[in-house]
Amino acid sequence: MSLLFRRSISSMASLKKASKVVCIGRNYADHITELSSARPKQPFFFLKPASSILAPGEGPVIRPKGVDLHYEVELALIIGKQVKDLEADDEKGAMDAIESYAMSIDMTARNAQNEAKKKGLPWSISKGFDTFLPVSQIIPKSAIPDPHNVEIYLTVNDKIRQNDSTNLMLFQIPRMLSDISKVMTLEKGDIVITGTPKGVGSVVPGDIMRAGIKVGGKDIQEGKIEVG
Amino acid sequence: MSLLFRRSISSMASLKKASKVVCIGRNYADHITELSSARPKQPFFFLKPASSILAPGEGPVIRPKGVDLHYEVELALIIGKQVKDLEADDEKGAMDAIESYAMSIDMTARNAQNEAKKKGLPWSISKGFDTFLPVSQIIPKSAIPDPHNVEIYLTVNDKIRQNDSTNLMLFQIPRMLSDISKVMTLEKGDIVITGTPKGVGSVVPGDIMRAGIKVGGKDIQEGKIEVG
Ligand SMILES: [Mg+2]
Ligand SMILES: [Mg+2]
Ligand SMILES: [Mg+2]
Repeated sequence: MSLLFRRSISSMASLKKASKVVCIGRNYADHITELSSARPKQPFFFLKPASSILAPGEGPVIRPKGVDLHYEVELALIIGKQVKDLEADDEKGAMDAIESYAMSIDMTARNAQNEAKKKGLPWSISKGFDTFLPVSQIIPKSAIPDPHNVEIYLTVNDKIRQNDSTNLMLFQIPRMLSDISKVMTLEKGDIVITGTPKGVGSVVPGDIMRAGIKVGGKDIQEGKIEVG
Repeated sequence: MSLLFRRSISSMASLKKASKVVCIGRNYADHITELSSARPKQPFFFLKPASSILAPGEGPVIRPKGVDLHYEVELALIIGKQVKDLEADDEKGAMDAIESYAMSIDMTARNAQNEAKKKGLPWSISKGFDTFLPVSQIIPKSAIPDPHNVEIYLTVNDKIRQNDSTNLMLFQIPRMLSDISKVMTLEKGDIVITGTPKGVGSVVPGDIMRAGIKVGGKDIQEGKIEVG
């Protein structure tokens, strides 16, 4: 076993030990439009349980009975230290808080989520099933010089469904980490997923999702996800 | 340092390492009435982050600016092993899954929660601020022969605000653990809080909350919470 391979394995084990996974909602304008949602005046966020994390090779994503299962490709930040009450204009503080990156798919039981929204109920069930957070290998921080200028994409059965630049984010990372850390202290190992661009849609058992990230037009190997 | 004291400290440290805190909503009929909520046909639940846990002696609870801060006293279950797809009629399986108990106060930013409900947004922010989950010491399992037949109570400045028997729960523990574990696998160390009886209300800085649990009319020492 190579040194590199062993490091990946232990990083993945530690992802699953995240004390929380914080997810930004409605952070790309065209995605808000496609779901007929209201544009938020400030970032809002919700939690997925660490038990929903699906490490590379651990698939497939399990579709619960009766669920309209949607994909949402998202850039994930792995937090490297405790962050509390970060100021929104503290760009250096925000970047220093990031230890590394990963790609992720925020799987969503869309019909259950729509019903929860209508009834004013929590999103936790519709977002929190086992296998609802496929992640890639850890992407070293050095591979992403500017997280607001990368392309993230997702294909289903080799057809492109999502493909946009993170420069379309409504709220950028310093603002997100500020708003989150003024509510809940971020801890080393926590994961923040940063919202999904337009193009979300349904998958059914047997479909193959592939997701990834391009920096300067070139795929980052560690950021690739392939899951059934 | 006595052996007993050391054991409590290490148990508390492990509570904060819970991989998730799952919270049952609307599980006592009179509490549903007082908040004018709809009675659920099945248990529903949401997540609080482990970062919201406030161990004994760590107070006070911090009220965020502009927040109408409500208390909700709840019996907490500490899970002792992995639980997945438990059947609702598996009472033995449910009881075997419980390692110990604790008392807890599910602090809630009620105005933020009401606004989230109206807008169909997640509850995570209104439930997830730092210090929003005061807990007691660990209560040994043997101290609670029947978790559906204990009294839980909460006082504010020595006035009784909540005081009811857990026999009023709409959904009992086997049903809760079944429903949760069919969505998200429960892991050793996870915490499940089981809903609050009637009597919730506001506290302001300076108020002293005391909570506890009585078994056969007698207070369990480990279950006492005192927090500003
Ligand atoms: Mg929620
Ligand atoms: Mg998402
Ligand atoms: Mg509650």
